[in-house]
Amino acid sequence: MSILVRFGVSLEKSLLEKFDWLIRNRRYTNRSEAIRDMIRQELVKKEWEEDRDVAGAVTFIFDHHKRDLLNKITDIQHDHQKIIVSAQHIHLDHDHCLEIVAVRGRSGDVRKLADALKSVKGVRHGTLSMSSTGREIK
Amino acid sequence: MSILVRFGVSLEKSLLEKFDWLIRNRRYTNRSEAIRDMIRQELVKKEWEEDRDVAGAVTFIFDHHKRDLLNKITDIQHDHQKIIVSAQHIHLDHDHCLEIVAVRGRSGDVRKLADALKSVKGVRHGTLSMSSTGREIK
Amino acid sequence: MSILVRFGVSLEKSLLEKFDWLIRNRRYTNRSEAIRDMIRQELVKKEWEEDRDVAGAVTFIFDHHKRDLLNKITDIQHDHQKIIVSAQHIHLDHDHCLEIVAVRGRSGDVRKLADALKSVKGVRHGTLSMSSTGREIK
Amino acid sequence: MSILVRFGVSLEKSLLEKFDWLIRNRRYTNRSEAIRDMIRQELVKKEWEEDRDVAGAVTFIFDHHKRDLLNKITDIQHDHQKIIVSAQHIHLDHDHCLEIVAVRGRSGDVRKLADALKSVKGVRHGTLSMSSTGREIK
Repeated sequence: MSILVRFGVSLEKSLLEKFDWLIRNRRYTNRSEAIRDMIRQELVKKEWEEDRDVAGAVTFIFDHHKRDLLNKITDIQHDHQKIIVSAQHIHLDHDHCLEIVAVRGRSGDVRKLADALKSVKGVRHGTLSMSSTGREIK
Repeated sequence: MSILVRFGVSLEKSLLEKFDWLIRNRRYTNRSEAIRDMIRQELVKKEWEEDRDVAGAVTFIFDHHKRDLLNKITDIQHDHQKIIVSAQHIHLDHDHCLEIVAVRGRSGDVRKLADALKSVKGVRHGTLSMSSTGREIK
Repeated sequence: MSILVRFGVSLEKSLLEKFDWLIRNRRYTNRSEAIRDMIRQELVKKEWEEDRDVAGAVTFIFDHHKRDLLNKITDIQHDHQKIIVSAQHIHLDHDHCLEIVAVRGRSGDVRKLADALKSVKGVRHGTLSMSSTGREIK
Repeated sequence: MSILVRFGVSLEKSLLEKFDWLIRNRRYTNRSEAIRDMIRQELVKKEWEEDRDVAGAVTFIFDHHKRDLLNKITDIQHDHQKIIVSAQHIHLDHDHCLEIVAVRGRSGDVRKLADALKSVKGVRHGTLSMSSTGREIK
């Protein structure tokens, strides 16, 4: 179990009131949890900047009618199988599929995989969700 | 099938050389595909700003040892089941899980779900991957 | 003067150590100041989302040799003079100028000015720095 | 003078219609100019990632009543005078000042200056506007 420590923060009264409004708005139950989240967000940004071990998701949509598209996407995923954990496939409508690939590895390698998938002809939009393995933010 | 049209772009020679270098670097096979992708990126940004029908993924990591955490996460997902398509769950290590929830709905509702999941105590990091249903970017 | 209040934050010991490393790295002298800044960042984001009264800067570079460019830029600034406070002009090299326009007004109007300046032929890059009037973040 | 070259882009008709709508909305007069700007945006991002020579602005607001604040801000600017070109100072209201510092130098050094200014007690919000010297994007 992790050890909890406590420290005091001093703040302008008016700023604290705005903070309380903000975190209610985002459904936090207490200030500590909101502050922890802001800290972790900054730490995760650092992990990605410094080519450390990260986790995340590559999300992309494509038109499955495009010739050879599925083969190309599968080939790319096999070339990067070391950093791919699993994939989820959703049929959006008659034409479009959404694929979400869960990834884990060095941030540089993950970015390369995302670039490779996004650049395939027929892939209409791709994003990279930058999260963490959790070890460096606890 | 979609109809292809063609139009001319005029560009400084030096800028075109840098563009060609950039798209080689990102593994595009031709300029048209790279330009299409830049256009679609801007259109997807608009979809999210204007509370339109979107698709995407909410990615978050959590410590599954936290008491009641799994119940809370499941409850929240049930409260938003109308916009949740499916979920993918990855065991990162002894403590940490990565969950990726595929979503589809109005962008405002999707944001609310993401906020609700991120604010749960024990959820260590959450991100929202903003993609598209594909219909408005083809 | 603003009244200072104090509250306690509880945090995992290991997370606090990482936070202390992060804020040393960014040259903060104490935790409270770093936490205040994270809160204010979130509040400023909200101000811009909600079309409130904001302040900021529009920064753009252009090639002053382009015919009529200076006239167009000046015309646009006059059309928006209500939200422009002042401008700073820097000669980067023989060809390029950097102009920084200090702005204040509703965020929607400020965005429109930034879009208008960016779209002028000969303006090579433009960015909008989103800051605050200070009143809502103290 | 720069040499203009011309090349053809092929696009889905429906995508082109949406692009035309988008650029009218952003006040571009023609497609080439909008495409040039999207390309330059990507190139400027690269310049900042790769610690190249850049230009930009550090914008921050502060409460000038805070004791010693002006001295600290001036000291920091003198420590970085090699990369500071000029500064613009705006009195927002009785308490708040907006200062915009035009900068030019290696992106890493510019970031350090921005971090130093943002971390000063009394500085309420700071942003870094990432632009370019113009030489690498023409």
